[in-house]
Amino acid sequence: MGSTEDLDYPQVILQYSSGFLVSKVMFTACQLGVFDLLESEGPLSSDAIAARLGTSTMGMERLLDACVGLKLLAVELTQEGALYRNTDISNIYLTKSSPKSQYHIMMYYSNTVYLCWHYLADAVREGRNQYERAFGISSEDPFGAMYRSEEEMLSFMAGQNSVWSVCGRDVLAAFDLSPFTQIYDLGGGGGALARECVSLYPNSTVTIYDLPKVVQLAKEQFVPPEECRINFHEGDFFNDLIPEAELYILSKILHDWDDDKCRQLLAKVYKACKPGGGVLLVESLLNEDKSGPLETQLYSMNMLVQTEGKERTAAEYSKLLETAGFGDVQVKRTGKLYDAVLGRK
Amino acid sequence: MGSTEDLDYPQVILQYSSGFLVSKVMFTACQLGVFDLLESEGPLSSDAIAARLGTSTMGMERLLDACVGLKLLAVELTQEGALYRNTDISNIYLTKSSPKSQYHIMMYYSNTVYLCWHYLADAVREGRNQYERAFGISSEDPFGAMYRSEEEMLSFMAGQNSVWSVCGRDVLAAFDLSPFTQIYDLGGGGGALARECVSLYPNSTVTIYDLPKVVQLAKEQFVPPEECRINFHEGDFFNDLIPEAELYILSKILHDWDDDKCRQLLAKVYKACKPGGGVLLVESLLNEDKSGPLETQLYSMNMLVQTEGKERTAAEYSKLLETAGFGDVQVKRTGKLYDAVLGRK
Repeated sequence: MGSTEDLDYPQVILQYSSGFLVSKVMFTACQLGVFDLLESEGPLSSDAIAARLGTSTMGMERLLDACVGLKLLAVELTQEGALYRNTDISNIYLTKSSPKSQYHIMMYYSNTVYLCWHYLADAVREGRNQYERAFGISSEDPFGAMYRSEEEMLSFMAGQNSVWSVCGRDVLAAFDLSPFTQIYDLGGGGGALARECVSLYPNSTVTIYDLPKVVQLAKEQFVPPEECRINFHEGDFFNDLIPEAELYILSKILHDWDDDKCRQLLAKVYKACKPGGGVLLVESLLNEDKSGPLETQLYSMNMLVQTEGKERTAAEYSKLLETAGFGDVQVKRTGKLYDAVLGRK
Repeated sequence: MGSTEDLDYPQVILQYSSGFLVSKVMFTACQLGVFDLLESEGPLSSDAIAARLGTSTMGMERLLDACVGLKLLAVELTQEGALYRNTDISNIYLTKSSPKSQYHIMMYYSNTVYLCWHYLADAVREGRNQYERAFGISSEDPFGAMYRSEEEMLSFMAGQNSVWSVCGRDVLAAFDLSPFTQIYDLGGGGGALARECVSLYPNSTVTIYDLPKVVQLAKEQFVPPEECRINFHEGDFFNDLIPEAELYILSKILHDWDDDKCRQLLAKVYKACKPGGGVLLVESLLNEDKSGPLETQLYSMNMLVQTEGKERTAAEYSKLLETAGFGDVQVKRTGKLYDAVLGRK
């Protein structure tokens, strides 16, 4: 973009203004099952898609055309009229059944995060999360609010699993974790990262440590019982015992909490950790001068809107680790959304 | 973007997912007055900005950093710490007092459109607008719903005025309208397009024809009484008389209505129009194969969510004009958001 053009006509401002329209078009096409239908049936007309998915024809036609504009669908003009089909990226990432499906994280974004963000101005004014305005529930305990119903817990857990289907391998391969065979995944939720871990490190066993109701759902819905290298431990890692292990994974845990709570948790982890063991933080790292990356800056705002935490720089995480007693701290950026920081006892 | 990279990692999907975060960051910085403060005071620290705007410091710091990531602000590291300042594009388009300010359309998007779009899936299913779900008001009469309070009317009218501050001159200069001196702007609202018109065509007088309560607000808030070449006419152009004139401007009017209502309105306009006169449609035109432009496809979805209408192609508008009796139809694309179609009687 030439800077003169930018100033004559606010192209970038218009693009930012339309951001929420773009998000909701993609989320809605996912939610209504457009990509799943086209993946199983091949090219169809808008009338056929509307009929099969039980929607209005006029609404569906416009939704499909907007997806074409976003290159999530392609259209061919045939003798029977316009036929819509998935593009490759939609087949891989937007269908429910694909191994790399982002469907569940989109539904969480669309149904929960979108509404919390309606109150972003209030969040900035007050410096706290917006569950009360968005959902009428107390915001004192963020996970009480996030897990306010089984449906919401499922949506959140499935959403996190989608993230690890794309980013999990990179964060686990950032360091050679093969020396650690006895691993705890604190707040491991739906277990997708634990499953990546036992697949990447065949000698490891991973224990998912999470709240009892989360563990219950993980067993029922996400981790198959034949996965014998994954165990479960029910508890609240702030208030209950953390058992001894060689490696603790804290993946998107510290970003939920303020510095005090982080120090408190890391001190407990350090105490439980076997000598020679370590802790792996998986987080989206801010640049040291906080100038970016943009996605991480946006996620840090989301931490304001939904939790008590924030995203941090590598130096901030290193300092938290060192304060707890960990040493030899190493940082690896993956080039994707989530990075890895390893500390040793 | 290389296509292999696209498929290995869903960069574009992540970008679409974050669209609503980007929109809300920009809207919120506008709403809280960040750009106005920095425009009048010059570079300030995040603490100073938070104090002056009465927000939390931790929320404000993150909002400012996200604006830096979006290049809406720049940051300099000085001896007193990080100081934030507006970029050129923010000074021109995001401050309230700039002649090209987009502030009001952003507030309309952020407070009204964003919430309607939370129900996009319902809009597609049902094929109708979502005022009832979003605001608990009947959706039978879209303008009854849009103008449900004076505050909402003001927000909408000011928002439309922002649009014409950037796009008005181009759509009025697309054709030489100087032969038409007696002009009616049907649904002319806040009057920004009328003011551009009398400025561009010094021999013209423009009558803003709109609902009585809209005319009232336009006179009170938007059109200064010394603007003697702008007149007002109170009425409902579907049900009341349309007076004779040489040119009728219908700017973003037909896109609010279905084909039947458009034909009905254009037939009335044709009947009222002086022989030799004409009608100027100002609309965002879809490509003939509906493959784009993306912005227009998104706006057409918004017409589903908020009105009874849709965006149309040049051929569709030409046909509506011809059915009403207009001839010699000419189309001019401006390269910006809104285009112009002229028909003659």
